[in-house]
Amino acid sequence: MTRPAPSFPPKKVNVAIIGAGPAGIGMGRVLRDLAIPGVTILERNRIGASFHLWPTTTRFITPSFPSNAFGLTDLNAISFDSSPAYALKREHLSGAEYVSYLEEAVDVFGLDVASPINITGLDPEGTDIVLHTNVGDITAHFVIWAAGQFQYPNLSAVPGSEHGIHSSQIRLWSDYPGDEVVIVGGYESGMDAAIGFANAGKKVTLLNRSAVWESDDTNPGVTLSPLTSQRLNAALQQKQPIELIGDAHVVRIERLGEIVKVHAADGRFWTTRTFPVLATGFTGSASLIDHWFERDDQGHHVLTDQDESTILSGLFRVGPEVRHKGSPLAFIYEFRQRFAVVGEAIAKRLGIDTTPLNAYRARNMFRDDPACKNHEGSR
Amino acid sequence: MTRPAPSFPPKKVNVAIIGAGPAGIGMGRVLRDLAIPGVTILERNRIGASFHLWPTTTRFITPSFPSNAFGLTDLNAISFDSSPAYALKREHLSGAEYVSYLEEAVDVFGLDVASPINITGLDPEGTDIVLHTNVGDITAHFVIWAAGQFQYPNLSAVPGSEHGIHSSQIRLWSDYPGDEVVIVGGYESGMDAAIGFANAGKKVTLLNRSAVWESDDTNPGVTLSPLTSQRLNAALQQKQPIELIGDAHVVRIERLGEIVKVHAADGRFWTTRTFPVLATGFTGSASLIDHWFERDDQGHHVLTDQDESTILSGLFRVGPEVRHKGSPLAFIYEFRQRFAVVGEAIAKRLGIDTTPLNAYRARNMFRDDPACKNHEGSR
Repeated sequence: MTRPAPSFPPKKVNVAIIGAGPAGIGMGRVLRDLAIPGVTILERNRIGASFHLWPTTTRFITPSFPSNAFGLTDLNAISFDSSPAYALKREHLSGAEYVSYLEEAVDVFGLDVASPINITGLDPEGTDIVLHTNVGDITAHFVIWAAGQFQYPNLSAVPGSEHGIHSSQIRLWSDYPGDEVVIVGGYESGMDAAIGFANAGKKVTLLNRSAVWESDDTNPGVTLSPLTSQRLNAALQQKQPIELIGDAHVVRIERLGEIVKVHAADGRFWTTRTFPVLATGFTGSASLIDHWFERDDQGHHVLTDQDESTILSGLFRVGPEVRHKGSPLAFIYEFRQRFAVVGEAIAKRLGIDTTPLNAYRARNMFRDDPACKNHEGSR
Repeated sequence: MTRPAPSFPPKKVNVAIIGAGPAGIGMGRVLRDLAIPGVTILERNRIGASFHLWPTTTRFITPSFPSNAFGLTDLNAISFDSSPAYALKREHLSGAEYVSYLEEAVDVFGLDVASPINITGLDPEGTDIVLHTNVGDITAHFVIWAAGQFQYPNLSAVPGSEHGIHSSQIRLWSDYPGDEVVIVGGYESGMDAAIGFANAGKKVTLLNRSAVWESDDTNPGVTLSPLTSQRLNAALQQKQPIELIGDAHVVRIERLGEIVKVHAADGRFWTTRTFPVLATGFTGSASLIDHWFERDDQGHHVLTDQDESTILSGLFRVGPEVRHKGSPLAFIYEFRQRFAVVGEAIAKRLGIDTTPLNAYRARNMFRDDPACKNHEGSR
């Protein structure tokens, strides 16, 4: 259903959005609603590339439900009037299914996606920003960085990670060699791997610094999703061989001939004859633009209240890496609420009418107090 | 966790809410936020009684997810700061699990629920309303009818229904006698029964006037939920013996000795040796107060823009039977958006400050244009 992408993007654009994932496409939709001219999405790979690489059995942990028409947006929708649940008639989409939703959104919203375009760097030029790419320089008034937060497996979380394999690099759990597996990391992707391996008949030992599976926090960002809790409980009730170790702070992995040892800080260790599976998350692609942002004491990019660089005017960030006062906006339903904030900032500078954004305010898709989350009272 | 209910309610109350289901409890919470004094919930049976009676394998079709803290209310929550998904760590709750959520809500919100109190009728008395009950008359300034919409199986949808059994009267699909079952009705409860029977090893024939399972409507009220679509597709892929007949307008059921015949309008019929299962929905309990409402041409109660009777001032309705211009508010996430509207109407008449309702507006829990649903653009 996707329109053929232009083989080459314009040399000069008004707004360049980097990345055709949910953040880039959702952002593109807001700019289209504002009727901002000259918007192009530059994508290095393909629409929804990181979802395309998900293990085949992996599903969204946030459920989709087609309630948009009733004022409650599908948790995984990138706009208040679209719904992956409705488009796919499934509640927990696979990566491939989500890609088809994103492709349809690009088509229906009439967005321009140019790919494959690889950005190698950017520099200010007067009041513009020049993007250096594999097809030459592209000049933009505004750049919105929405790229590739889940493309790079974090393989530096533990010394000796080179002796393991990242969970995202396994397409089929049953393909993993041997009958036993040691998993490092116990949040969503570690649990997904543990359940997947167990269902494929393997004995699983999962190591994590804390027992997140027992967490009672209200924040979905630090506790297991209901889907994963349910799947885990079902697997344990079926006596699947999953051992959960919730006090193992893994500090080192070493290979000794035929075996690999996974060491915890307290001296305990676990051995495996294949390679430990690292569910240690991802590092973002933003290293390319790191020097255009100040950093906070945790190393995160400091952003203005409109998610703009404090160093380079016109450079914005959207997506799961955006943080305000340390709070990540990890899920689609969180970071999508910032698209309209960025759209408003750009529209105002261009002297463009922002009344189309009233629809976003009315639909809870305009969050201008990103750090003021109401955790209190939630049960 | 529930506080002991008062054995008898006060003889005089400010606001009487009839029914301690999601509508009554959610409404009670709004009145508590408004600090309206003298509110009592009168319940004939027990908190969440109709959920208590669900078949043990039946689940909510709307998924729960604890996203309230991020401005997106759990679809099955009765308030913007509570979440059955969080409380139960499950996504699709059973009836019993939902009851425990409701009981906890009553407890945490400090609501007064008096039960068992059976209302037999009501009458105006000056500017008050007198409720006639099994424990004597109770006088209220305002009455909010939030009662028992799913307590009464609709057994009059088809002539001869007495030869069948209503789907809600079956607690365990495997208990149903025989190896074959004919189901009349193909929406959510009919499909739930079909899948449940098939999983219990029975051959299923499901009859419905239209093939809702092929519907492409965006309105969750007239198309199958993603959960049900998924379950149905999984059952069909596993070659479960489910035959779906999408053009059978059932007009009559008759018993002929050992067999029961289910007749369609076009002359076809289906036979069964046990009794057909009727998934024909429910009739509400509002017949008791029918004469206090005007009716529209479809027989539904006519309500003011504040969901009040046009005949008896001070008598309001909340819950899934509320309709405006024919549109039902069937799901919790729909009808809960009207609680604040009713609360505002009552607060204004009592001269009570309504600013606590701003929080409801900000959280998409205040829908004062009930008939203006935005179906356009939803996919």
